Amino acid sequence: MSDTPLIIAVIHGTSRELNRSIHAARFVMAELKKHGVGVKFVEPADYIIGRTEDNPEKDPRLLLWQKIAASADAFVIVTPEYNRGYPGELKMLLDALYDEYEKKPVGLIGVSNGGFGGASVVTNILPVLKELGMVIIRETIRISKIQDVFDEEGRLKDEKYIQRFDDFFDELLWFASLLKKRELTDPHETS
Amino acid sequence: MSDTPLIIAVIHGTSRELNRSIHAARFVMAELKKHGVGVKFVEPADYIIGRTEDNPEKDPRLLLWQKIAASADAFVIVTPEYNRGYPGELKMLLDALYDEYEKKPVGLIGVSNGGFGGASVVTNILPVLKELGMVIIRETIRISKIQDVFDEEGRLKDEKYIQRFDDFFDELLWFASLLKKRELTDPHETS
Amino acid sequence: MSDTPLIIAVIHGTSRELNRSIHAARFVMAELKKHGVGVKFVEPADYIIGRTEDNPEKDPRLLLWQKIAASADAFVIVTPEYNRGYPGELKMLLDALYDEYEKKPVGLIGVSNGGFGGASVVTNILPVLKELGMVIIRETIRISKIQDVFDEEGRLKDEKYIQRFDDFFDELLWFASLLKKRELTDPHETS
Amino acid sequence: MSDTPLIIAVIHGTSRELNRSIHAARFVMAELKKHGVGVKFVEPADYIIGRTEDNPEKDPRLLLWQKIAASADAFVIVTPEYNRGYPGELKMLLDALYDEYEKKPVGLIGVSNGGFGGASVVTNILPVLKELGMVIIRETIRISKIQDVFDEEGRLKDEKYIQRFDDFFDELLWFASLLKKRELTDPHETS
Repeated sequence: MSDTPLIIAVIHGTSRELNRSIHAARFVMAELKKHGVGVKFVEPADYIIGRTEDNPEKDPRLLLWQKIAASADAFVIVTPEYNRGYPGELKMLLDALYDEYEKKPVGLIGVSNGGFGGASVVTNILPVLKELGMVIIRETIRISKIQDVFDEEGRLKDEKYIQRFDDFFDELLWFASLLKKRELTDPHETS
Repeated sequence: MSDTPLIIAVIHGTSRELNRSIHAARFVMAELKKHGVGVKFVEPADYIIGRTEDNPEKDPRLLLWQKIAASADAFVIVTPEYNRGYPGELKMLLDALYDEYEKKPVGLIGVSNGGFGGASVVTNILPVLKELGMVIIRETIRISKIQDVFDEEGRLKDEKYIQRFDDFFDELLWFASLLKKRELTDPHETS
Repeated sequence: MSDTPLIIAVIHGTSRELNRSIHAARFVMAELKKHGVGVKFVEPADYIIGRTEDNPEKDPRLLLWQKIAASADAFVIVTPEYNRGYPGELKMLLDALYDEYEKKPVGLIGVSNGGFGGASVVTNILPVLKELGMVIIRETIRISKIQDVFDEEGRLKDEKYIQRFDDFFDELLWFASLLKKRELTDPHETS
Repeated sequence: MSDTPLIIAVIHGTSRELNRSIHAARFVMAELKKHGVGVKFVEPADYIIGRTEDNPEKDPRLLLWQKIAASADAFVIVTPEYNRGYPGELKMLLDALYDEYEKKPVGLIGVSNGGFGGASVVTNILPVLKELGMVIIRETIRISKIQDVFDEEGRLKDEKYIQRFDDFFDELLWFASLLKKRELTDPHETS
């Protein structure tokens, strides 16, 4: 089982057009592929926005999100900060599932156009991720003035971030491997 | 100007059906009317969910929300707690405007089916409300096991809450009156 | 009463030596004096650290802090960020009082040696200040790389901050004046 | 190595006398011992309060705390909530170390005399624990009206909590064992 490649779901926090955080998400996906990881991309608009609440459990888009989340060994959330908090559509996406997140590591990348690197959104979302049972890694990327850090194709322009991303991927993959290999002594599965 | 009745927008944090927090919202509206206040009710589904992002500034639903918020002297947010955070649809509603909130008081009512009275949601949303320029009042209502506190028509069943709501309305109306009467020395209006 | 000059207590969040945030505190005090405000300086070490808990209510240092806080019309907290949270000694200082803070505005200045301007400490402390009954103003100063922003005497070296501090002082003094002049209809004083 | 008993440091968040949260801490220690775990008790007053800052790195009390933390495989923090935040003395204790916490699980037990079970303190401290590199477990105990839950000797009076504590200890010990057995591929140790 440990020979199967890891699968990581990269969640982009918004579907607003023109949002430059997508460039960071593209960079993350390309780097993860270089590490031999299977990558799945998720954006709230594809799963949540506009869905009816009448029969949510039968909504085919929700079922697809559920399938992706269940298959993932870890999550990366790349998100802009809106008014010091998380985008509403990201929260709706996360709130739609529960068991699929359990004991899977999550890494956070906060993005802002201005000067504080999404430092508030990566804090504001912590109690939510903990409640969902994810294992929050310490390494966190805060990207200020994203237009100076990535170009349109998601190529890194600012060398200061190379070491930070290396540390981020190291910790994320370390936790993903460790938790994937966990024995079936998981208290929540046996109780 | 100070003789005009106050107008208060009561924002219900979710549009999910079967959510009992609506009973608390109904109680709040009825009580505010007894205080001689004009009340407007706002629910995310009526303004946000499913709206296209193509021309958001021309979306008639958004324009209506903008008109209501501009007319309000204060806000009350009655919201369930989802996974220790605020509902995504509530965040989308709040993020849709900005200037309309400035220097208006906001009171928070957190609701849960279980035992901790939405104590986390009323904390998780603080940095957002501060960034939006609202004046957050201290009195906050945390309602545990809402099914034991209100009946279906929004009538209070648990007498422990009478004093708490009295204190809440007193502080909210005190701030709403004070800030409505403020002189035109507001630094943000003159600068 | 409105002719009496405003008194503002500037609280420095730490007493660790070598902490550069003191330079920001010195700048704030000098600027407030230019605005004709009476300024009092408070540092945790002078009031809290090492005090016995046996008879805290009779500790002369605590009585002095109580007297200063009671006389203040507003507070400014200038604080470094320690591990994304507030310094413990600052929290001990704040927790020592209660009624003295009620309905007085508070402005926040977060400081860091590195790149994110104390963006986390000014968020982490929000629920505490709300519970203490302070009125949190929106304008908030986040100072990254403080060594590049102030010199040793607390003189501003970086012109980008001039407008930010102007907006900060404008809002703080506006709220301080408004709340000082408030009528005796304060619900908490009459109930 | 995996046969060595686990060592868990139980940190009590305050040293204020008369604080009933000590009863919860005593219960936790007794239960951990039943699980065959070595337990060490830590209280801020023994290590931090009143220490001089002149030569903190040589303070014998700090060296003792460092030794305990280094030997621990996991941490439990049992803490009262002061004004919706963490006690200052707890923060001073945590801020005194860094490397000793890395990749060790931490479980949270919030305590209040009133009705909301320390629900705010267990949220307010999350960004701090993440920054310190601890692995925050999901199961969290929130104890309302502690006088009704434990007697003076730390015996559980309220049966509702039995299952909650079972789940809490299961998850804590599961993570402690897993992370203790981790291979030397830890990215932070090799890089």
